[in-house]
Amino acid sequence: MNKLAVVALGGNALLRGDEAGTIEEQEKNATETLENLIFLIRDGFDLVITHGNGPQVGNILMRNDAGEQVYNIAPMPLDICVADSQGGIGYMLERMIRNVLNKHGISKNVITMVTLVEINPNDKAFSNPTKRIGKIYSKEEADALNKKKGWLFKSTSKIPNGYRRVVPSPEPRDIVNKDTIMNLARQGNIVIASGGGGIPIYFDENNDIRTLDAVIDKDMASSMLAVNIGADEFYVLTDVPFIFKDYGKPTQEKLEFLNYNDTHKYLENGTFGSGTMEPKIRACLNFIEKGGKKSVITEAKKLEDKSYGSKITMEYED
Amino acid sequence: MNKLAVVALGGNALLRGDEAGTIEEQEKNATETLENLIFLIRDGFDLVITHGNGPQVGNILMRNDAGEQVYNIAPMPLDICVADSQGGIGYMLERMIRNVLNKHGISKNVITMVTLVEINPNDKAFSNPTKRIGKIYSKEEADALNKKKGWLFKSTSKIPNGYRRVVPSPEPRDIVNKDTIMNLARQGNIVIASGGGGIPIYFDENNDIRTLDAVIDKDMASSMLAVNIGADEFYVLTDVPFIFKDYGKPTQEKLEFLNYNDTHKYLENGTFGSGTMEPKIRACLNFIEKGGKKSVITEAKKLEDKSYGSKITMEYED
Repeated sequence: MNKLAVVALGGNALLRGDEAGTIEEQEKNATETLENLIFLIRDGFDLVITHGNGPQVGNILMRNDAGEQVYNIAPMPLDICVADSQGGIGYMLERMIRNVLNKHGISKNVITMVTLVEINPNDKAFSNPTKRIGKIYSKEEADALNKKKGWLFKSTSKIPNGYRRVVPSPEPRDIVNKDTIMNLARQGNIVIASGGGGIPIYFDENNDIRTLDAVIDKDMASSMLAVNIGADEFYVLTDVPFIFKDYGKPTQEKLEFLNYNDTHKYLENGTFGSGTMEPKIRACLNFIEKGGKKSVITEAKKLEDKSYGSKITMEYED
Repeated sequence: MNKLAVVALGGNALLRGDEAGTIEEQEKNATETLENLIFLIRDGFDLVITHGNGPQVGNILMRNDAGEQVYNIAPMPLDICVADSQGGIGYMLERMIRNVLNKHGISKNVITMVTLVEINPNDKAFSNPTKRIGKIYSKEEADALNKKKGWLFKSTSKIPNGYRRVVPSPEPRDIVNKDTIMNLARQGNIVIASGGGGIPIYFDENNDIRTLDAVIDKDMASSMLAVNIGADEFYVLTDVPFIFKDYGKPTQEKLEFLNYNDTHKYLENGTFGSGTMEPKIRACLNFIEKGGKKSVITEAKKLEDKSYGSKITMEYED
């Protein structure tokens, strides 16, 4: 049996901060990232690819708002917007991976699956929405949207007096489509799944599937998927080659080999800061804790050199 | 081995002409339609479900336009919009089918797949775009959009001086993801695929996958999928219980049992008119011609009574 890896693509795999988000930019970025997965395929891995959807679903939400303003088109709720983004981003990734495989003469099938992820409707996240989505508004715009749609807002550090909509970010409980994803990947298909952390659903008292406005922590959903399907390794691709202790301080230190206990301690002590790296490290630790062999955080372009990147294992590697 | 059916849901399965298209309406319509698939499941069929996306992708396109106007968000091309609609509609259908199965105590897995459909970039449709998409514009609006985006327009019979955007509607050549769809359905999964006729792609001289602005004939794509996966029966669910000869004329006649040759003759003679029924009948004939046993055109709610609906077979059934 091949080794199995889950590879979580960061937001910058598709859309970078300084870009307008045109389809040409997204396709170019996707291809540059996906090109590097060839190293994992050549190394004998079956692959499941997960991806973020922050900028894209933000745009979809804004388009819903604008469509209602300009054309009076009924806006769709967040679950449908996330599902839309799984379709659109997943298709783009599928097309680009197929082209990368073609370029390298590798014959492999690619499948993009809509993925439902179960959450707990009583998750504490619902009493304290923290996930910022969509564009930046002025105070006046935010107040108007709060009145009109009941959206909640928090200030953003990005611009003074800027506000962004916040929704709850509950923990994933289960990947509803996990068995299918595992079977397809184990058969040698590259599976694109769990986009944007998955579409949040819960089972009501009749076991009917319902949804709630929420964005699931995508790193944790990817990690849970990796555990559920028995992956050997879990890759989190981002825009830095390593994780650092005391990042930005005089005591900054590049971390190449980490074990579970030390990393857990660093995390609780705030050694990694509380930025976007924290949820990635938490997701990596979750994978190791539940039996995964190795978590890796690095840049996509570093996959060629296996000595690169920050590797988290239960015990230190020799 | 179970019998295998492809069921093509018409646009009204989700969104009806006189509705605003809210999520509540779409979910209610979907549930009412899907409820009837229980009869096919109880009859021992494995199922692949395909669906239209006309109103939804029209709304997505309009939201892209409005998002650019109001928030200067880069609009996505048609292939991404179709992929978005496959994600959003597919998810909605998946959720509603899972709830219908739950209600009836049937344990079956459901999978929603993004589906790429190959077209010929030299298809004659590209020299004569005919597929109307999106909302109705005035002459002035249509002219402005033609100037701004190069969109083409044709008048609509729905309102005087109304215009709608037209894109080419090429024939499908191949369902790229057909093997996966077949395998998953044969394993007993309900597969939702080929939404909106599929995302139009073609292979260039390097065998790279490229796309073009087009909407594939969804009935023909569903029929091709049914042929490709070796389905036994092909169901086209629409808003009439039967097809009629000379519909609306004094000679109108309900057709219950049709054979291939007569139906083909009727079609060529214009006996069915040239409305929305024609492509459905053409798709049904294609299925029979390529070896399918039976095509059925009817209303979803008539599936309970197997004597209902218009049945097309190679020879008349006894």
